[in-house]
Amino acid sequence: MDLVDKMFQGDLSALTRLISLVENQSPKLLNIMPKIYERAGRAKVIGITGPPGAGKSTLVNALIHLIRKQRKTVAVLAIDPSSPFSGGAVLGDRIRMQTHALDEGVFIRSVGARGSFGGLSRATKEIVRLYDAFGFDTILVETVGVGQTELSIMEVAHTTVVMLVPESGDTIQTLKAGLLEIADIFVVNKSDRPDAAALQIQLKEMADHIPVLMTQAHQGVGIAELYENIVKHYEGLMKDADRLEKRRAQERKVEFTEILLNFFKKEYISKLDTKEVESGKKDPYMAAQEVLKKLGVM
Amino acid sequence: MDLVDKMFQGDLSALTRLISLVENQSPKLLNIMPKIYERAGRAKVIGITGPPGAGKSTLVNALIHLIRKQRKTVAVLAIDPSSPFSGGAVLGDRIRMQTHALDEGVFIRSVGARGSFGGLSRATKEIVRLYDAFGFDTILVETVGVGQTELSIMEVAHTTVVMLVPESGDTIQTLKAGLLEIADIFVVNKSDRPDAAALQIQLKEMADHIPVLMTQAHQGVGIAELYENIVKHYEGLMKDADRLEKRRAQERKVEFTEILLNFFKKEYISKLDTKEVESGKKDPYMAAQEVLKKLGVM
Repeated sequence: MDLVDKMFQGDLSALTRLISLVENQSPKLLNIMPKIYERAGRAKVIGITGPPGAGKSTLVNALIHLIRKQRKTVAVLAIDPSSPFSGGAVLGDRIRMQTHALDEGVFIRSVGARGSFGGLSRATKEIVRLYDAFGFDTILVETVGVGQTELSIMEVAHTTVVMLVPESGDTIQTLKAGLLEIADIFVVNKSDRPDAAALQIQLKEMADHIPVLMTQAHQGVGIAELYENIVKHYEGLMKDADRLEKRRAQERKVEFTEILLNFFKKEYISKLDTKEVESGKKDPYMAAQEVLKKLGVM
Repeated sequence: MDLVDKMFQGDLSALTRLISLVENQSPKLLNIMPKIYERAGRAKVIGITGPPGAGKSTLVNALIHLIRKQRKTVAVLAIDPSSPFSGGAVLGDRIRMQTHALDEGVFIRSVGARGSFGGLSRATKEIVRLYDAFGFDTILVETVGVGQTELSIMEVAHTTVVMLVPESGDTIQTLKAGLLEIADIFVVNKSDRPDAAALQIQLKEMADHIPVLMTQAHQGVGIAELYENIVKHYEGLMKDADRLEKRRAQERKVEFTEILLNFFKKEYISKLDTKEVESGKKDPYMAAQEVLKKLGVM
């Protein structure tokens, strides 16, 4: 039985091995992933992002508990673009997640930047598809920060929760554009702090169509309400067939481009002889132009 | 006279127009940039990065004053990966920089994510080469955040200053790996705050070979010492011919790959018919494989 069939039968070690293939962008993926895509499409994908220290891991942990109480399975992908490590527990608060270590209905994996040859955005999408095809009901994608990489990571989520804390006032101003664009729900965590209400008002003024919820993730306060809002948003999206199909069409196009670029880079560019470019004998623009002409592309 | 010659004669509007070509990744660049590269290589390129709110703009402003006092010219490239805008004043504290608006020896430009087709890292490198070829003595590259995009942006700098503030304790833990890798100098800004000394000690423990300087950028405290350290680092790099040549070889190779990927994407992939992929009729992996086979690449 091949790896994919094993995974379809619920073999977690097969899932883990397929994740490794993704991280290494093995050319085998070109034949494996179509089978995965065929099977995927049933999971609810929830993104959690926000600046460091906002409490994302704690919130994710609280959501896992809640989802498990409803007897649904959940897989977590924690992404840390600044970490060189993959596979283990890379994020600050990962230790909390070990409370779920013995629960077969919870699967947790961390990915660092250098653990993904095709870029984090590509790896994220593929791992999420693997989780989905495996059969997890809910997938939580957690990522630190709100930079460009993080924005593209969040493309994979049906519902994106942007988490902030009262002290992140600077962040709001600076990162205004990016945050607004991806947020389906805002969460003000550590809502017992003095400036929480002011932050809530500020967020509501910035985006009056987006719910702004208050949580104290450590105490479990506000988690049930947040999950209700997530489900509501997800169900709204699922009902809107036009919007969903446009979204899927856009996703498929982006994925096609990413896959093509990755394999072009890995299987072709990286094998070119670049000695003359490296030594400065040949200008990189001239050299690139030569290759494009040789391929008949330009 | 063509645009490049005009720029070489000191025409700032020609420089501005060339920057626009970079932002649009015009195919003209394949012929223009070799001339720019030939001329570049004399400027000192300094990167300033760190989390939002660390005081980067204020520090950059203080450095501009100091550099101008020494009768050197300076060009600033401010990068905000989360902003959709380009060209104008996008960063939080940009208004301060308008104090230099009437000074011909200072050129300031902002780039947002969506203002660069080939990705921010590519645009940054090309704009820095344009500044360099124009003849600016010093180039300051300022970027918000410490995500993956920012790390690759900083490849362009000879000397990278990572700025932190006492309250960014969480950030250090979370982003440890990335920060350590790119920092040539650490700056603890707002050094009058209670936890500043503790942060300095923490940074020194993490990386005992990297200077950790204290500044109060708003008051101009510590700026002269910082600049001395920057110059010292830069001169150390320039003296080390082996290290410099290795660095340049690596840069040239990375640039070749980036240029090739950008133009492959812009001039070829984006012109492919993706209807069947978008509609779901053709799997994106299968479709990518077909293209690669057609090109004889796989």
